[in-house]
Amino acid sequence: MSEEKIRVVARVAALPDKVEEVKSVLMGLIEPTRQEEGCIQYELQQNLANPADFVFVEEWESEASLNTHLNTLHLKEAVDRISRLTAEPPEISRYRLLA
Amino acid sequence: MSEEKIRVVARVAALPDKVEEVKSVLMGLIEPTRQEEGCIQYELQQNLANPADFVFVEEWESEASLNTHLNTLHLKEAVDRISRLTAEPPEISRYRLLA
Repeated sequence: MSEEKIRVVARVAALPDKVEEVKSVLMGLIEPTRQEEGCIQYELQQNLANPADFVFVEEWESEASLNTHLNTLHLKEAVDRISRLTAEPPEISRYRLLA
Repeated sequence: MSEEKIRVVARVAALPDKVEEVKSVLMGLIEPTRQEEGCIQYELQQNLANPADFVFVEEWESEASLNTHLNTLHLKEAVDRISRLTAEPPEISRYRLLA
């Protein structure tokens, strides 16, 4: 497991009539996640052209800290709550910074 | 045109045998773009699971500064150069920061 810092772009596609409900669940992730060890950046954004499209832009100290995050109760509960409010499962992509 | 700061996530999907060529073109955008007025953040990332997937994570002072960027010669030349090296056109999505 690499000790390199890791970036994440995570997309959540809300159902058109569930945008505010999804937003509320996602907003609830901000504070507990920022308190996690290894969390450098955790920002939530909403698409200006399509309000149903949310992205988290994240930076973690290591793959290990990201994996710990993905197993936290607050994340698992949020994923469970939005499963009926979204068009597809969240798309979580891991990146390394080039420049 | 809003004066609010604007975030961008821009995806570039390289053809499998053109990854290094695309990377080189995209890397060439970093310095001239960071020197543009209104550019707050302009980072290039490469997907750890799929090296053909690149994303720029960007922040701009305003919609106006982003639109100016999209019309610069360096960006237009890069888009032209990668048009034969990519599976689909770049996907440029504009976001506002929620938290």
